[in-house]
This record gives sequence, structure tokens and C-alpha cells, in this order.
Amino acid sequence: MDESIAKHRPTSAKIHPLIHNRWSPRSMTGESLTDEELAALFEAARLSPSCYNAQPWRFIYATNNDPEWNAFLDLLVDFNKSWCKKAGALIVIASRKRFEHNEKPSQTHSFDAGAACMSLALEGASRGLVVHGMGGFDYEKAAILTKLPADFEVNAMFAVGKKASKESLSPELQEKEIPSGRRPLTEIIFRGNYHN
Amino acid sequence: MDESIAKHRPTSAKIHPLIHNRWSPRSMTGESLTDEELAALFEAARLSPSCYNAQPWRFIYATNNDPEWNAFLDLLVDFNKSWCKKAGALIVIASRKRFEHNEKPSQTHSFDAGAACMSLALEGASRGLVVHGMGGFDYEKAAILTKLPADFEVNAMFAVGKKASKESLSPELQEKEIPSGRRPLTEIIFRGNYHN
Repeated sequence: MDESIAKHRPTSAKIHPLIHNRWSPRSMTGESLTDEELAALFEAARLSPSCYNAQPWRFIYATNNDPEWNAFLDLLVDFNKSWCKKAGALIVIASRKRFEHNEKPSQTHSFDAGAACMSLALEGASRGLVVHGMGGFDYEKAAILTKLPADFEVNAMFAVGKKASKESLSPELQEKEIPSGRRPLTEIIFRGNYHN
Repeated sequence: MDESIAKHRPTSAKIHPLIHNRWSPRSMTGESLTDEELAALFEAARLSPSCYNAQPWRFIYATNNDPEWNAFLDLLVDFNKSWCKKAGALIVIASRKRFEHNEKPSQTHSFDAGAACMSLALEGASRGLVVHGMGGFDYEKAAILTKLPADFEVNAMFAVGKKASKESLSPELQEKEIPSGRRPLTEIIFRGNYHN
């Protein structure tokens, strides 16, 4: 665990170092992940909680050795392409919009998928891997490319890979290769009711 | 960390014990959380990643000492009321539906809020606290009670509290006080494209 990460994000209470030290780097080596690493990322996601334990999350992925790799990479906006080409795998995160047990709309399918992806990100962090979520891609094309059934929705894409040094990035990307800041707690928690 | 939890959920790859041992118990003592514990839960959520780092999550909460406590408890369906009355705090999770920087719709606000809540749940697990997410409550009443602005959406409620023994639950609830199962990995991951 790189203790230097946490210092970019001071907190008012001590939080678990796995959570405190996780961040979303972009610098990857271009190496593939091992099958065991990929399995661990997905297993961590699999164990997440969900409304009615419906587990609405689905992960459609391509590794950088797969025939689908270029098409997955091509879903991304140019900025994300520029660094994701060094990822070991790209993952499209989808979730089922209705509950399977009664086909009623789920209020929490995206929320539950987000929880699963946080587990995946933390498992990656614990292994020193890069896990980086993205909204910068073509959602419609992603659904078509992955042959996603209509009862699912695309939530996000994730890049995962082996961490490389900051110096292997372009100068513009090097500037961004630090943990981003966060709003103060006072802007996100409200006791009793929402108020400014 | 209670190693007996992980054995209920075998995995095909070794995952971090914090993630493997987290689950969603219901048995709580009725004690309040300390300010430090509550702060740590919210700080963990605060550090989560989000699309454009927009941090759309908001946490509106009442502790069991607050004047709003009964009204928060009353949002829940009867089943959840029956065990949440022993929680230390109840939290309504909301997220902003549009980005603040351009007021365009966010595809990921609920997804990002889910990620933040997973951090919160794992921080709670690391402290031996109960953190239990719920969809079983009145979403409309929750928005009204918390005076949630119209540009936010309610995602879920979370109960947090001090863990009590299984035996302090009613017989019906005792039966449910074990880690729930999960689908096999083969049902949630798809290489290349979605297929059965």
C-alpha cells in the first residue's frame, strides 16, 4: 500500500488503508492480467450486496489478447483511448433494469452495479493493479457491440491493467496522474434533512 | 475479521479479506454510533471515484437520538422496521441526476452513489459495525421527509449500527442472519459479448 496516496486526501476520521489509498491511476504497462487476477476482480464484484440479492450486474469484457480488443477500445473517447490502449482488459458494466423474480422495475440496478464495481476497484487496489472507471465512451455502441439484451442498461466502462510509472505517460497525462480531490464532508452529509 | 463468514462464500480466486468477510447482518444493539464512527463511514464514501469526479452522492441521515429518528424509521416497510429500530442511524442515499458543471444528465449518478455506499459498507465492516442497505422503504416519502431538491433522486436507505448477537433477533430473523449466497461467476461475466 502506497502511504503517499492517502496524504493527498486528508480525512476527519481514520479510514481503512485499503479504502484510503485507492485511487484511479492511468499509467499501465500494456501487459495482460493473469487469469487469477481477472478472476479475483470479478469475484470481489460478485460478493457485493444488492437489493433483494438480485445481483443485477453483468461484466462483458475483452482482454488485450482477444479478437474483440480493438472494438472495445474503439468505444472510448479519444482521451480515454490514449491511455487505455495500455490496459490489460476493458470491461463494459451493465445491469438488469427489472427484477428477474417479478419483472418489476428495479430502483437500484445501477446503484448495485456501482457497489459491485467499487469492490472490484478495491480488490484491484489491494493487488497494486490499475482500475479506472469511465463514462467517456459511446453507450449505444457499447450495448450493440456487447450484444447486450434490451432488459439491461450500460452503466460504465472500466479499464484494468498492470501499473506503470507515471513517467511512461505523455506529459499531459503525467499532470493528471495524482489522486483527485474531493468535496468536503459538509457538502455531502446532511443531518435530519437536506439544507445548505 | 470473522473468518467464518468467508467460508459461506467460496471464491475461485483469493480476494482481500475485508471484501470477502463483509456481509449484511441485521442484529444491532440499539446503541448509537460515535461521531468518529459516523465520520469514518462518510469519509470512506467521500473518497469514492465518480464520473468527472462529480461526487453526486448525498447522505441525509438521522441518528437514533435525533428528533427525526421516528420519521426515518417510519419510511421503512414493516419487515425492515422490525430490525432497524435497533440501528444507530438511518441514512437516505441520494444522487444528483445532472452534472453540476453543465447540467447535462448523468448516466452514472446512481452507479457512483452505489460505489460510495460500498466504501461505506466496507469501512463499517472493518470496524465490526453493521451496515445494511435497503430498497424496502417509501422512496417518495423519503424525498419529501428529507426535503430533497428535485434535481436529486433517492437510491437506497442504509441502516448502520453496533453489531449484536444473532440470538437477540426474533426466531424468524435469526434464520436469515447468515451471509446470503451469490450466483456463480459464469452467470455474470461474459468474454467478448453477452451470451448464454
